[in-house]
Amino acid sequence: MASTRTQVAIVGAGPSGLLLGALLARAGVDAVIVEQRSADYVLGRIRAGVLEQVTVDLLDEAGVSGRLHAEGLPHDGVNLAFDGVLHRIDLKALTGKHVVVYGQTEVTRDLMEARAAAGLRTVYEAQDVAVHGFDGGQPFVSYTLRGEPHMLQCDFIAGCDGYHGVCRASVPAEALQTHEKVYPFGWLGILADVPPVAHELIYAHSEHGFALCSMRSAARSRYYVQCALDDHAERWSDEAFWAELKRRLPADVAAQVLTGPSIEKSIAPLRSFVAEPMRFGRLFLAGDAAHIVPPTGAKGLNLAAGDVGLLSRALAEFYGGSSRGIDTYSERCLQRVWKAERFSWWFTSLMHRFPDTGSFGQRMQHAELSYLVSSEAASKALAENYVGLPLAF
Amino acid sequence: MASTRTQVAIVGAGPSGLLLGALLARAGVDAVIVEQRSADYVLGRIRAGVLEQVTVDLLDEAGVSGRLHAEGLPHDGVNLAFDGVLHRIDLKALTGKHVVVYGQTEVTRDLMEARAAAGLRTVYEAQDVAVHGFDGGQPFVSYTLRGEPHMLQCDFIAGCDGYHGVCRASVPAEALQTHEKVYPFGWLGILADVPPVAHELIYAHSEHGFALCSMRSAARSRYYVQCALDDHAERWSDEAFWAELKRRLPADVAAQVLTGPSIEKSIAPLRSFVAEPMRFGRLFLAGDAAHIVPPTGAKGLNLAAGDVGLLSRALAEFYGGSSRGIDTYSERCLQRVWKAERFSWWFTSLMHRFPDTGSFGQRMQHAELSYLVSSEAASKALAENYVGLPLAF
Repeated sequence: MASTRTQVAIVGAGPSGLLLGALLARAGVDAVIVEQRSADYVLGRIRAGVLEQVTVDLLDEAGVSGRLHAEGLPHDGVNLAFDGVLHRIDLKALTGKHVVVYGQTEVTRDLMEARAAAGLRTVYEAQDVAVHGFDGGQPFVSYTLRGEPHMLQCDFIAGCDGYHGVCRASVPAEALQTHEKVYPFGWLGILADVPPVAHELIYAHSEHGFALCSMRSAARSRYYVQCALDDHAERWSDEAFWAELKRRLPADVAAQVLTGPSIEKSIAPLRSFVAEPMRFGRLFLAGDAAHIVPPTGAKGLNLAAGDVGLLSRALAEFYGGSSRGIDTYSERCLQRVWKAERFSWWFTSLMHRFPDTGSFGQRMQHAELSYLVSSEAASKALAENYVGLPLAF
Repeated sequence: MASTRTQVAIVGAGPSGLLLGALLARAGVDAVIVEQRSADYVLGRIRAGVLEQVTVDLLDEAGVSGRLHAEGLPHDGVNLAFDGVLHRIDLKALTGKHVVVYGQTEVTRDLMEARAAAGLRTVYEAQDVAVHGFDGGQPFVSYTLRGEPHMLQCDFIAGCDGYHGVCRASVPAEALQTHEKVYPFGWLGILADVPPVAHELIYAHSEHGFALCSMRSAARSRYYVQCALDDHAERWSDEAFWAELKRRLPADVAAQVLTGPSIEKSIAPLRSFVAEPMRFGRLFLAGDAAHIVPPTGAKGLNLAAGDVGLLSRALAEFYGGSSRGIDTYSERCLQRVWKAERFSWWFTSLMHRFPDTGSFGQRMQHAELSYLVSSEAASKALAENYVGLPLAF
């Protein structure tokens, strides 16, 4: 069996694992990433695209933000639509901050390229990845590569392998507390090479359900409509999608939607999930491996970035002689995680049509939307969550 | 049959009917109040005791606020308790406003005495009260007094007769839209002649359920604990109540609770209810006749005062030659009503333990409470609702 050694074994080469690797490299900590998929598969996953300032700062720190600053779209506001009217929440005026629209795929690509250019090691297409010994002093990751068994010895394991990954699954069930909510609907999303209808995002509440107008660039639009849980993307022609989207937008906005052939069409379920704690001996969970948010408000990637921002610093402190960072990692992450979980749950609950909500519940949504856009305090509460709460370094 | 005439027949001599009568008298509009109960019965009903500035202003305008200003307790803040810690929301600093604690019973007494002193007519113990002809031009109220039938002819009928009253029930069902939510718990409340534990209110969230520390005066306390819907006040000894209350408060607060014999003990259900519209021809609904809020946040009396504030002005405008006020009465009331319904529903949902909420829901409550006391914007949003949103005169 081939055996190698590193300080931190990172499981998963999604954006959290890659960003953690980049931040550790900057801090002089050696890390190897083990990923069961190919690089192309990882890049093919289409996810969120709204980055908080905290995330941009971490990408700056990792030295991988050149293209982000050149091509990312800074957004100073976000729009809520209901009752046929668009209401702009001025993020910049309310919080002094903005968000940057830049696809997760692009973040991943930038991180992969920087990692390759720096000669840092990533093992792709590792099979039978397993984590061992993290409750003692000699953790290691085992995997098979092209039929040959490998063993990666390390000081720490970082579980950046997502909701379905092996890291959280390897923790004894009695050591984990999990909290979950599954929403009774999904998001049908399409990607199309047409200019977006507005240069800022539009979150639309309508009697026909929720819709979101987003984008990846000035030439590529990302649109979503709330759909039934048992729906299938194949049932939706492009024409049907565009018609449904327009039906859920204010008429003047709908009239300006530019349509075109979809280059991707898929349905995602909506889930809230948290596993506590986020550290088990020498194993740390980060990002989706520990928590999932519904996509409303785009917190998923930002929470993951925050986790690895704290983890990279904690590990660097450990090698500098202090275990304070790793000892408080879980608690500091979870403070922010629960606030973002709350925001994502609240924003999801506010904007969607729930199958079992009676007329009183619908009126509550409407009253809250009306209040939200009429009260500076309420608008600011939304805005400060949307641009992202600070990291507890 | 004895027949009399007035401009406005007010059904119900609770605080809304009495305040409407007082405001109309100030505006030179003639009104008679018809009440099925005795004055003593009305005074015996124990209700809320937190007055918004808007309500105090209306009582000032009605000329019945002398004792309120002498004996009412201005509160510049309100407290939230959770995780064993008290957090003060500084209403005054956040909004520039305060609330005044003064029992609804006292408001009612002041209004009754002023009405009697001014020689304004209230018919108590009217039986078989019925409202007629409000969809045409000649409305009237019929009732029986000491066995004799009476007919009160009028220009308008004001339905201030509460949730169970005849006015809303007399509107054809197809003309009404109703929205309702019944909460899966009640409030067990006691009144005791002991000094309150704190000079401002404490809303407590705990694993054992919600508790509220309130007061009527510096010597009379009003305490509540959330209880099961099928509970009965008779099952609770005073000792059991005090023990349960203390169990739900931070230890340092619980240690300071002064206990004593209860002078009233009862259970109230919690309900949200709105009937729309609030006008049907020459019949106007006001207060509980049109809408009910759960008591969390004490909006009930304040909403009723707001309704009759708008209604008195609208009727005075009508007699001054403009029907704009009465034509927009329902819409203007409902804008504020829905916002207060939302606040009361939200505050109720946040503070209580729900029987069917899993661990994720409980964490959401906790995350929201933590966010609320850590964010100035979120604290201000709570505060501006607590002190009351402005009336749309």
